[in-house]
Amino acid sequence: MRIVIVGGVGGGMSAAARARRLDESAEIIVLDRGEHVSFAGCGLPYHVGGEIPAADSLLVQTPESLRAALNLDVRTRHDIVGLDAASRTLTVRTAAGTETLRYDALILSPGAQAVRPPVPGLDSPRVRTLRTVADATALRERITAGARRAVVLGAGFIGLEAAEALAQQGLDVTVVELADHVLPPLEPELASLVTDELRRLGVAVRSGVAATEVLPGAAHDVVVLADGTRADADLVVLSVGVRPDTEVFARAGVETERGAIVVDEHGRTNLPDVWAVGDATVSTDAVTGVRRPVALAGPANRAGRLVADHVLRPASARPIPAAVGTAVVRVGELTAATTGANRAALAAAGTAFHTLHLHPSHHVGWFPGSEQIHLVVHFGADDGRLLGAQAVGRAGVDKRIDVLATALRAGLHVEDLIDLDLAYAPPYGAAKDPVNLAGMAASNVLDGTLRTWHVAELDAVTAEALVLDVRSRAEFATGHLPGSLNVPHTELRERLDEVREAAAGRPVRALCGSGVRSHIAHRVLVQAGLDSASLSGGMLTLRAALGPAADELLTTHEPAFAG
Amino acid sequence: MRIVIVGGVGGGMSAAARARRLDESAEIIVLDRGEHVSFAGCGLPYHVGGEIPAADSLLVQTPESLRAALNLDVRTRHDIVGLDAASRTLTVRTAAGTETLRYDALILSPGAQAVRPPVPGLDSPRVRTLRTVADATALRERITAGARRAVVLGAGFIGLEAAEALAQQGLDVTVVELADHVLPPLEPELASLVTDELRRLGVAVRSGVAATEVLPGAAHDVVVLADGTRADADLVVLSVGVRPDTEVFARAGVETERGAIVVDEHGRTNLPDVWAVGDATVSTDAVTGVRRPVALAGPANRAGRLVADHVLRPASARPIPAAVGTAVVRVGELTAATTGANRAALAAAGTAFHTLHLHPSHHVGWFPGSEQIHLVVHFGADDGRLLGAQAVGRAGVDKRIDVLATALRAGLHVEDLIDLDLAYAPPYGAAKDPVNLAGMAASNVLDGTLRTWHVAELDAVTAEALVLDVRSRAEFATGHLPGSLNVPHTELRERLDEVREAAAGRPVRALCGSGVRSHIAHRVLVQAGLDSASLSGGMLTLRAALGPAADELLTTHEPAFAG
Repeated sequence: MRIVIVGGVGGGMSAAARARRLDESAEIIVLDRGEHVSFAGCGLPYHVGGEIPAADSLLVQTPESLRAALNLDVRTRHDIVGLDAASRTLTVRTAAGTETLRYDALILSPGAQAVRPPVPGLDSPRVRTLRTVADATALRERITAGARRAVVLGAGFIGLEAAEALAQQGLDVTVVELADHVLPPLEPELASLVTDELRRLGVAVRSGVAATEVLPGAAHDVVVLADGTRADADLVVLSVGVRPDTEVFARAGVETERGAIVVDEHGRTNLPDVWAVGDATVSTDAVTGVRRPVALAGPANRAGRLVADHVLRPASARPIPAAVGTAVVRVGELTAATTGANRAALAAAGTAFHTLHLHPSHHVGWFPGSEQIHLVVHFGADDGRLLGAQAVGRAGVDKRIDVLATALRAGLHVEDLIDLDLAYAPPYGAAKDPVNLAGMAASNVLDGTLRTWHVAELDAVTAEALVLDVRSRAEFATGHLPGSLNVPHTELRERLDEVREAAAGRPVRALCGSGVRSHIAHRVLVQAGLDSASLSGGMLTLRAALGPAADELLTTHEPAFAG
Repeated sequence: MRIVIVGGVGGGMSAAARARRLDESAEIIVLDRGEHVSFAGCGLPYHVGGEIPAADSLLVQTPESLRAALNLDVRTRHDIVGLDAASRTLTVRTAAGTETLRYDALILSPGAQAVRPPVPGLDSPRVRTLRTVADATALRERITAGARRAVVLGAGFIGLEAAEALAQQGLDVTVVELADHVLPPLEPELASLVTDELRRLGVAVRSGVAATEVLPGAAHDVVVLADGTRADADLVVLSVGVRPDTEVFARAGVETERGAIVVDEHGRTNLPDVWAVGDATVSTDAVTGVRRPVALAGPANRAGRLVADHVLRPASARPIPAAVGTAVVRVGELTAATTGANRAALAAAGTAFHTLHLHPSHHVGWFPGSEQIHLVVHFGADDGRLLGAQAVGRAGVDKRIDVLATALRAGLHVEDLIDLDLAYAPPYGAAKDPVNLAGMAASNVLDGTLRTWHVAELDAVTAEALVLDVRSRAEFATGHLPGSLNVPHTELRERLDEVREAAAGRPVRALCGSGVRSHIAHRVLVQAGLDSASLSGGMLTLRAALGPAADELLTTHEPAFAG
């Protein structure tokens, strides 16, 4: 049996390796258009930044090592130009010419290619994507040759890794992002923390604006933005997204959906004996059911293994799981991570959900080195099912998102998060881990013990309610909402009459630093018969959500009536 | 309604805080025998070691702060000497005398006290437990006063934290453990890594031996061990375990089981209006169903909250979950963590299970700073259910154990671990995360794709099988099993005849460095018709399991027939 695999990275190579372990007798041929197979694409930005000094470190396997260990026939610089499913043949272009190759089973893992938006000037030689080892090498060469100013188009995960890498090399870096904020999949109140960190690293962030043109020049290029501003660039990294690299296969009759290959749960395409896997295929979102390609290394690698199972032992092959979409990125000293659906995806899917913001310590506060985790959790308003979670912080972020990703995959509800028995010793967590706390708060929301309000409601709240700030006087003095009443939570029980009087029949909307004390206050208020709610995430979330506007809004003026 | 809570740490204080949030009108009285409530008992060793310089940092709450925030009536130095359930009264001894206190609901959270084995001399003033802030302060005073030599009796989690702390303070430390190895809940092949680390820290480890006597002396004490050896000690830390502190309640008719209070799933004792929570109560193990007290802060804190729910809103209170028993400890630069059942517990429960050893990198190997995680996973032989996992390593250990603890709580099977969508970027993990890899290997075992052998079978294997070492020649030369044949996995397909000849009808038992290459070799061998198996965890596990005996067993001698 001859298994031909198109694409020697990620899902394709996983399929090849698994196929060999299952079947010593199969002929397994891996074709790749590029120079390298099994290279660590995720490591490219770190090579640009110098953290991985040698490009060779990224070449995890070579055709020779794969031949020796797994008896794979790996052929690089082999470009597929045709597929005929009827005769089970591929047409392959190589340096030596064009050849045909017969297969018994064909696994397509062509991956994705960089999106090139219709912006004039992107063909300037100073513009480069960051998809291959050659790209990374070229960027390093330009840095060595004296490049001082870089513009990164696109502030997604790879764009930000590239921006940080270039800043590490001492370049002046500007990131341009069409969306309102960097890392578009992240909630804006978390993304703003990443923006702050980028600025701390010396990276200029221009979000909510398009690049309209790249003007090539003799000494340098100029990137023109839609607002008329310009940025000089000795090099430009184009990183505005990817699209499935499937044209040749679509032409051959492989069914695609907005360019992505349509596969069933075993990776089968519409053509007989043709499977597909990875970034080029359509996945179904585990939370929303939306169908879209997912360009993530983990799912692709694991799906490759399952596709090989289905090729060689179809009766017992497990299905490729729906996509949870867990992702993480390091930006400076921060980690930003996400799993499941975000607010926009849930809204688009018409799901009724609640959102909670927490800022727990990554380990107990009394152990040295404690860092806050800024955590957002979305859960079903009706059933309490965990729907998504995101976090940003300096430590412990990836752990909590992985726990929540596991819970999400297992279909757990927020109440189940309370019961998770997570490893606690002072250097690692807390007796009530951040994930437990998220479960407790969410379950309080579900059963009505806690009612929250959100920064999005700020205008309505300040217009129609009494804002009760239950922080200490010292915290209040550092900045508070105009018109808010300061009653520290430790004084609230004694000063209820004062609050009632100030409310004058209006609802009371409590807030504190992070939402913990205002929850206690809310319980006092609601049991005193007041219409009350607690600001989700408190002043920390408010400041992060409003960004620079917070400084304009918040006042340090002491109101005349404050007690 | 008056709620009285006995014990102001852990579960007791969690219950008090939750009760207040649910009910502003309740009178909530917390009684504690000790000087402090809500103190961070888990932090005591770090105060001894100096990492937490000020004892005050450990006093998370005070009676005053709890009064102010939660309107709790906290009374320290209040010792319960009697309980009359018929009249709903406690008899309480204070400095001022004895008083009675009526309750409507009583929550017992008395905790545990240190086990004091019947070893003569433990009443020496140089012997101290490490359970209270006063204990930690006393140990620090002795260090300041010039103590140079310490003996720690008991190498459990707290004993090792204490040993490291004392070593950090420059003392010569000896740890004595009756069990065969340190951290008795840990599998021996992982515990030996912890022993190595302790030795690196300068701590002498004496395991498998009892302390038989402490001889008090004028200048110092002498600890005598069962093997006749002696250790001089300026101070002795007694940390051989805890037992429920329940005598007074048992006398009053509270049902106990080997000293632990018997409770139902809502924390109810056999007496009306009396609940109990925490280290003093019986828990049911989530994996084995065994009933035992669990002395862990996390479960106690979370159960306290559930007990308060049941006291105040019984109709909607969720049950206290069964105990998964996740635990973690930092020892030097290592983290050791466990969740679920270990080999001994599974054997005792009569569960049919498989065990796998893996040594994956905590993040991709080509990213700087990669560290190995030494991982052991137990899973059901019949159903593939995850039953337990343990890990030791320098990075990423707590994350993987938390993910596995979540999977275990959710009842996931090892195949489900393959599908977990965990956060991957180079600084955090791999496209196939260690947890995914564990699932892949385990599922290979379940469906017969992988057959393993274990170090425990070593004698039988070397007697009856051909040991095939598929590492490189260079690795083989660093030490190998006598009589083993070295065929690097990259040469195996070409040298199958040689292997068959050497086997001469015997089974072939493959091994490599960590079990990855021998798995590939196993697939080659078994498809060539040979009786084959791959050593679980490879030479790394073999060396860890055998400890110093490995150096005696393994040879660097090149066998005459090696090709």
